[in-house]
Amino acid sequence: MFRETNSRSIVKGITWRVLATTTTVIIVYVFFGRLDLAIAAGILESVLKVALYWAHERGWHKIRWGRERISPFNLWFTGLPSSGKTTIADAVFVELEKLHIPLERIDSKDIRDLIPNIGYSREERNRHLKRVGHLIQTLQNNSISTVASFISPYRESRKALREMVHNNIVVYIKADIETCKKRDTHGNYDKALAGEYPNFTGISDVYEEPKHAEIIIDTDLLSVEEAVKIITNYVKKHYIK
Amino acid sequence: MFRETNSRSIVKGITWRVLATTTTVIIVYVFFGRLDLAIAAGILESVLKVALYWAHERGWHKIRWGRERISPFNLWFTGLPSSGKTTIADAVFVELEKLHIPLERIDSKDIRDLIPNIGYSREERNRHLKRVGHLIQTLQNNSISTVASFISPYRESRKALREMVHNNIVVYIKADIETCKKRDTHGNYDKALAGEYPNFTGISDVYEEPKHAEIIIDTDLLSVEEAVKIITNYVKKHYIK
Repeated sequence: MFRETNSRSIVKGITWRVLATTTTVIIVYVFFGRLDLAIAAGILESVLKVALYWAHERGWHKIRWGRERISPFNLWFTGLPSSGKTTIADAVFVELEKLHIPLERIDSKDIRDLIPNIGYSREERNRHLKRVGHLIQTLQNNSISTVASFISPYRESRKALREMVHNNIVVYIKADIETCKKRDTHGNYDKALAGEYPNFTGISDVYEEPKHAEIIIDTDLLSVEEAVKIITNYVKKHYIK
Repeated sequence: MFRETNSRSIVKGITWRVLATTTTVIIVYVFFGRLDLAIAAGILESVLKVALYWAHERGWHKIRWGRERISPFNLWFTGLPSSGKTTIADAVFVELEKLHIPLERIDSKDIRDLIPNIGYSREERNRHLKRVGHLIQTLQNNSISTVASFISPYRESRKALREMVHNNIVVYIKADIETCKKRDTHGNYDKALAGEYPNFTGISDVYEEPKHAEIIIDTDLLSVEEAVKIITNYVKKHYIK
């Protein structure tokens, strides 16, 4: 939340005064045809009204009516490991921050500082994402929008999340599994193929494609820049007044 | 965050106009001594300037300068089990909400939806509170203040938390262990004394009294209402402009 500083009220008063007194001088001149008196009236008006305007601004600053809470949204990036979720979500976050809306980035990696990842079974993954949903709820209660990127392979957990949060926008980052393997700089796919990871999405565990994604980004066809543009335009069109 | 609605700008314009045009009419009358022309000038001014004022308001609404982020605080209630932390923190939260600052209540019980409590050993408690600290950081990054109540028995975890968050206010809810036992409606103390809980603070585990608490509430001497007053006054004095 923001408060308006005293200097803001004063400078607003000055810009308004230039606009308003010029108008007064013109009106008085039109009515009375005497420029000297019109200007004198203008000067007196300026002095008086700068003070009045300041008091008026500070008074209104205390009134809550007409200040509307911004409605938050949740951009939810889902897709195979190394499909490009984090890269695109990071770039979208940078773009959306330029709009000066309250915004938080949530990535499956960073979230472990906050919520320990208890395991990779279906049940554990679902429980983990429910906790992430609670975090998004807490942020949304305070008008904060979120850019979240999680593999989130199961329909049931994405559905549970959609029911928990407001203005949920599922962005499916679509990539061929061969493309993902090429993009994987950590050798995770190789390790999974070697049997080291028993629940690796795409190899030893299923990825259930979203059926109701608001946005589908086919990374085999679109560049990161193009993807970012599509996603930010969607957000601007639907959620930024 | 809030946005200002169009109606707010319009109504502000009207209240300002009444104030401003009355001044103009008086000035013109003083200069020219003709009430009829003074009023005519006032009417013309009103019509023109209501529109100008509206445009001026909407223009300024787009300007961020002079809008200051509210600096968030963290009220951290610590004390023995059943000392009265939750009761007092709940009442403080209700009082502070009346100030219309962005505020979130965090209690050791409710937090489990978000952060699973992994255990009660010293190491596990410290890790848990560090996660709570991350949550408070995330909220503070978005100007949200917090009212948190956790037994938090160890100095090291309270110290770690103080280093993580801004404007930390430790409120030590002091109560004699006999008083706590009487207040305990769940029979937890009895179970702990019977050896059922191996890490129960005050019985089978230590509570390290805070040495640097900003506020100490001796619940044997103060009523809940008195405690709430002391705490909210502290917050108002230091953190509410």
